Amino acid sequence: MATKAKIGVLGASGYTGSELVRLLLRHPRAEIVLLTAERSAGKQMREVFPQFSPYELPTLVAIEGLDWAKLGLDLVFCALPHATTQKVLKEVLTQAPATKVVDLSADFRLADPAAYAKWYGHEHHALELQKEAVYGLSEIHRRDIKKARLVANPGCYTTCAQLPLIPLIKAKAIDLDEIVIDAKSGMTGAGRAAKEAMLFSEVSEGFNAYGVGHHRHMAELDQEFSLAAGRDVVVTFTPHLVPMNRGIFSTIYVRGKRGRTPQELHEILLKFYTKEPFVHVLPYGEVPQSRHVRGSNMTFIGVTKDRIEGRAIIISTLDNLVKGASGQAIQNMNLVLGYPETMGIDQVALFP
Amino acid sequence: MATKAKIGVLGASGYTGSELVRLLLRHPRAEIVLLTAERSAGKQMREVFPQFSPYELPTLVAIEGLDWAKLGLDLVFCALPHATTQKVLKEVLTQAPATKVVDLSADFRLADPAAYAKWYGHEHHALELQKEAVYGLSEIHRRDIKKARLVANPGCYTTCAQLPLIPLIKAKAIDLDEIVIDAKSGMTGAGRAAKEAMLFSEVSEGFNAYGVGHHRHMAELDQEFSLAAGRDVVVTFTPHLVPMNRGIFSTIYVRGKRGRTPQELHEILLKFYTKEPFVHVLPYGEVPQSRHVRGSNMTFIGVTKDRIEGRAIIISTLDNLVKGASGQAIQNMNLVLGYPETMGIDQVALFP
Amino acid sequence: MATKAKIGVLGASGYTGSELVRLLLRHPRAEIVLLTAERSAGKQMREVFPQFSPYELPTLVAIEGLDWAKLGLDLVFCALPHATTQKVLKEVLTQAPATKVVDLSADFRLADPAAYAKWYGHEHHALELQKEAVYGLSEIHRRDIKKARLVANPGCYTTCAQLPLIPLIKAKAIDLDEIVIDAKSGMTGAGRAAKEAMLFSEVSEGFNAYGVGHHRHMAELDQEFSLAAGRDVVVTFTPHLVPMNRGIFSTIYVRGKRGRTPQELHEILLKFYTKEPFVHVLPYGEVPQSRHVRGSNMTFIGVTKDRIEGRAIIISTLDNLVKGASGQAIQNMNLVLGYPETMGIDQVALFP
Amino acid sequence: MATKAKIGVLGASGYTGSELVRLLLRHPRAEIVLLTAERSAGKQMREVFPQFSPYELPTLVAIEGLDWAKLGLDLVFCALPHATTQKVLKEVLTQAPATKVVDLSADFRLADPAAYAKWYGHEHHALELQKEAVYGLSEIHRRDIKKARLVANPGCYTTCAQLPLIPLIKAKAIDLDEIVIDAKSGMTGAGRAAKEAMLFSEVSEGFNAYGVGHHRHMAELDQEFSLAAGRDVVVTFTPHLVPMNRGIFSTIYVRGKRGRTPQELHEILLKFYTKEPFVHVLPYGEVPQSRHVRGSNMTFIGVTKDRIEGRAIIISTLDNLVKGASGQAIQNMNLVLGYPETMGIDQVALFP
Repeated sequence: MATKAKIGVLGASGYTGSELVRLLLRHPRAEIVLLTAERSAGKQMREVFPQFSPYELPTLVAIEGLDWAKLGLDLVFCALPHATTQKVLKEVLTQAPATKVVDLSADFRLADPAAYAKWYGHEHHALELQKEAVYGLSEIHRRDIKKARLVANPGCYTTCAQLPLIPLIKAKAIDLDEIVIDAKSGMTGAGRAAKEAMLFSEVSEGFNAYGVGHHRHMAELDQEFSLAAGRDVVVTFTPHLVPMNRGIFSTIYVRGKRGRTPQELHEILLKFYTKEPFVHVLPYGEVPQSRHVRGSNMTFIGVTKDRIEGRAIIISTLDNLVKGASGQAIQNMNLVLGYPETMGIDQVALFP
Repeated sequence: MATKAKIGVLGASGYTGSELVRLLLRHPRAEIVLLTAERSAGKQMREVFPQFSPYELPTLVAIEGLDWAKLGLDLVFCALPHATTQKVLKEVLTQAPATKVVDLSADFRLADPAAYAKWYGHEHHALELQKEAVYGLSEIHRRDIKKARLVANPGCYTTCAQLPLIPLIKAKAIDLDEIVIDAKSGMTGAGRAAKEAMLFSEVSEGFNAYGVGHHRHMAELDQEFSLAAGRDVVVTFTPHLVPMNRGIFSTIYVRGKRGRTPQELHEILLKFYTKEPFVHVLPYGEVPQSRHVRGSNMTFIGVTKDRIEGRAIIISTLDNLVKGASGQAIQNMNLVLGYPETMGIDQVALFP
Repeated sequence: MATKAKIGVLGASGYTGSELVRLLLRHPRAEIVLLTAERSAGKQMREVFPQFSPYELPTLVAIEGLDWAKLGLDLVFCALPHATTQKVLKEVLTQAPATKVVDLSADFRLADPAAYAKWYGHEHHALELQKEAVYGLSEIHRRDIKKARLVANPGCYTTCAQLPLIPLIKAKAIDLDEIVIDAKSGMTGAGRAAKEAMLFSEVSEGFNAYGVGHHRHMAELDQEFSLAAGRDVVVTFTPHLVPMNRGIFSTIYVRGKRGRTPQELHEILLKFYTKEPFVHVLPYGEVPQSRHVRGSNMTFIGVTKDRIEGRAIIISTLDNLVKGASGQAIQNMNLVLGYPETMGIDQVALFP
Repeated sequence: MATKAKIGVLGASGYTGSELVRLLLRHPRAEIVLLTAERSAGKQMREVFPQFSPYELPTLVAIEGLDWAKLGLDLVFCALPHATTQKVLKEVLTQAPATKVVDLSADFRLADPAAYAKWYGHEHHALELQKEAVYGLSEIHRRDIKKARLVANPGCYTTCAQLPLIPLIKAKAIDLDEIVIDAKSGMTGAGRAAKEAMLFSEVSEGFNAYGVGHHRHMAELDQEFSLAAGRDVVVTFTPHLVPMNRGIFSTIYVRGKRGRTPQELHEILLKFYTKEPFVHVLPYGEVPQSRHVRGSNMTFIGVTKDRIEGRAIIISTLDNLVKGASGQAIQNMNLVLGYPETMGIDQVALFP
């Protein structure tokens, strides 16, 4: 039997942490040897996530005082809150420079220190690492990810918007000044912190927008879209909350450039993703539903024409905890460790 | 005690029918004397809607063979399916010309017979009545409604889009060629017909769009927006389904015309609706949630600036069964019968 | 126009508080003159519950330092947490002895100080008031409530179990040693405090029991069932959580005593509640659903025979925020102030 | 690579059918070569279940006219409606006697033709096969299943009740005349047929019981409990519907016999299931939640003492589509074909 990589999960008591554990427990080349959780240190994983009750897993420990060199981890997933991440990863990579890192926070996604400071309100605490980090959208930056030591896993909203838009922007097929992204997210995207606004009774039987006109994910979109376009791109982006657990669903309004029809936009996407195992472009005119990717690492994309000549409506959907977070992270792990890219993340969606 | 109007509800076994009954049971000037339902004729209302078990209501009857003259109804609410409506109302108003009608179907909303024929695929069966019908968005057409015999109650999606947009279009404050309406609806909007796609297990824990690029409600929007603008207006409109029972939520993207700022758009709306009991404009920059109008006849509207200069994001929400259907219908009844406009429909929203 | 009673709501930022405000805003003989909330003192009600945005309401204030004599309230609803309640109400009734109180906490429900101390772990802080308090299940203790100054509003679970069982116990119709109450509650019963276990993502798409074998509501059931029976009664009671906002649903397993058939149990209930406006006994063999009482002050009860000879299955359901809390509280206010008992709480259930 | 068994799924357009496909697509020793669906014959699987869009699967065909001998299937899963099943399987096994069958309908669960006729209202159409069929609760009847040609997969409700009760009954540890099973099910248990009562708007935000006092699953419980007890056992069983997609949750009230304490009941279960991969007994006093087995083949069982001396409350939960149907069916396939019992069904639960 092939040897297994020694894996650590930092921040295992949150939803992206538990999702990593769910997937890693069945990954044939991964062995979970470290699970951390600050407030739950000393507890068993089953006490914070009872679904793991039947499985053997390391006891949750605090990060403080861990000897990273001695641990000798092959790869660390970091699912810690913003800012803490910078501090912790600096320590990890100083003590254990051979350990690889896939970071699920937003801390290393922005390459430009000025952009980071503007959106997060303070200087970055690990500028050297920020420089080193590779943006981890596998379908777009695969080559760089394979060689990376530190991968900045993309956000769920931004993955869902980038996968359909990056190929169109690269192909110069759409008007860059009229992109509207109306995005909807399930509630796990808000994390597991106990907040009044996230209580069942506040959320169920209702719908709302938030962060209208300003939202930190915009910085990530700006960066990647501008990179793909070779010029500054600013889009309209409105996030909403849906009373469901999992799923990001983006309705994207674009105008074809230089006479490009909606059908031509569809062809560009179809061709771009023809060999990708985790991006599925539906036949022209069909629209995907979030429920049909639930629990899987799949992104479904549909393209339809608007009734206004020249405009197209593109719909993209994924599971925010899988392709939007932990599944994507394992996809990146597979790339970094030289495993087959789909290993351990090829589950079929759970519907209904 | 003031006399009560004799009221009939045609199509009482659907959701808009039951919502009419819910509200009329507590309306001080209305008495339900007729309830019809085709497949459930002969049953008690409690058998099709057990919530009415404690109340006395007429037995459900079939429409066929009713003597409208003899019934002598003051007002009939018509919640019948498309097309059937034309046939039935022609009969009602021929036999009982003094009876008033508020029709909740789409049959009399389009004033132009050609537009009707285009969107519905056949000639209108009651052209005379179509000519007579008044479009029943009370806040916009109040004066005409008061004098009407036949009121065409607006659709839920279109009410939610018209209330914020009509005043802005009338004030020539927004660019008419760049309006994007991303609309989301609760499931009661799909009615009570047993369809696989509406089963709980098909709907819960998911989100989807439908009718992308083409949807009959567009005809109604075209008509009313063009009327308000004095020229043809065609908007982009995408409806979605939210796993919740009640609520329409519209995220509307507009660009201010001739330098109008988002804040000025807000002021126009605030002023327009200052005395309206059922339209509430939130302070500038605040966004409403569908859950806070649930069960009430209220529409909440919020205006925020986009980060793209000159663009505004307007959010509008209402309960599709109340202000989007049966509450609006009773508001129209109140206007038609000369009652205070808020009578019987001033319930406070049910949240949580 | 009749004069309105001056009403205060202590603890207006929780769900029972907002539900009181919802109902009082439309009560013809009540005027809300005081709303308190500790952490939200200084805010407007619309900031903690946006559904009240269109209505004029007093600013939220802290309780500390209020002059109860000067306020001269006719009646105070107390929706404060356990223990705080005792302290506050002692102050209110000392300073303003003519003010009436309907308390929605559990603090004054147990008449026996020893029982209180056992279940709550400390001596009661207002023993005199505990003695004075009248247990406020209107259908059972109506006569005493009318004369009361301090009414202890019953719990939601216990109301749902008492309404079907008290008449049967009084009629000595069921075996007192074999009562099993399997109770299910919507999530608003857990209140608005931000707890991880109540987050949408922890609750939706799942079902669970809690407090199995021990739950404070048992003390209240013991007291009232024993009182009705004239001997000690101990029942098996298991509460569960349903992923829905509102509703208590109790499946109760009983055995008829001395040959009483399920049909005879049904007749006892039918007769007992024949004139009650808020308790509706369904025809024999029919079972109610929680959704059909949502938003109303109604309790629906159904009786069916088990396939095991002599055993009956009784199902009872109500809206925990209305008949299980705030509607019941206003029913008690109506009794205390001499208003018609149904005033302001006769809304028809909101379904769907 | 090991050869793969050729598998057919009869009735692939329902929920148990799609769940079989979900699991079989990732089973290392199974190849789906036949998918049938009557009304959808000729369609692709992706048209009835879009989650399968990225995968290659056989086109759906009608059963009529299939040549079972020529097909040479190793195993057929039958997810057809009641009664049709008898007819079809008779044909399959006549034409292709070497094909194995795992039947997910109720048609072959009752060994006694008289019991079948009583509960289903007609004589059984395949009495020979009924005699041959082995009841497929793997943990209880493993030895017989391994040798079976036709396995009758148990029902979801009954699996959830049998797994905790059979070992206690066999150990003569509980009073057989006082068992109360209060069962709750997610909505997928009702199947995919379009019925008004199963619409999202009829189901969400509510809770109800059904089949109170009589339900076909009782026959299956009677048979298996009586078999385990060596005498007739009749239990009280009430099914309820929870507004969630997946999950069966049973709250079971029992009394220990001959002084058996709840803790001793727990020990019996712990010992019985100590080596079972799919039944997990929680530590004494802990209670499971349905959400923590979602999507997995796991059953979680908890035992707690009631406050009434000698009585215990046992809670058992599983995913009705996995351990309650398709996962159990594949577990049986593994037994029948001699594969490792957990092969292809060891997914970790999907929570949240």
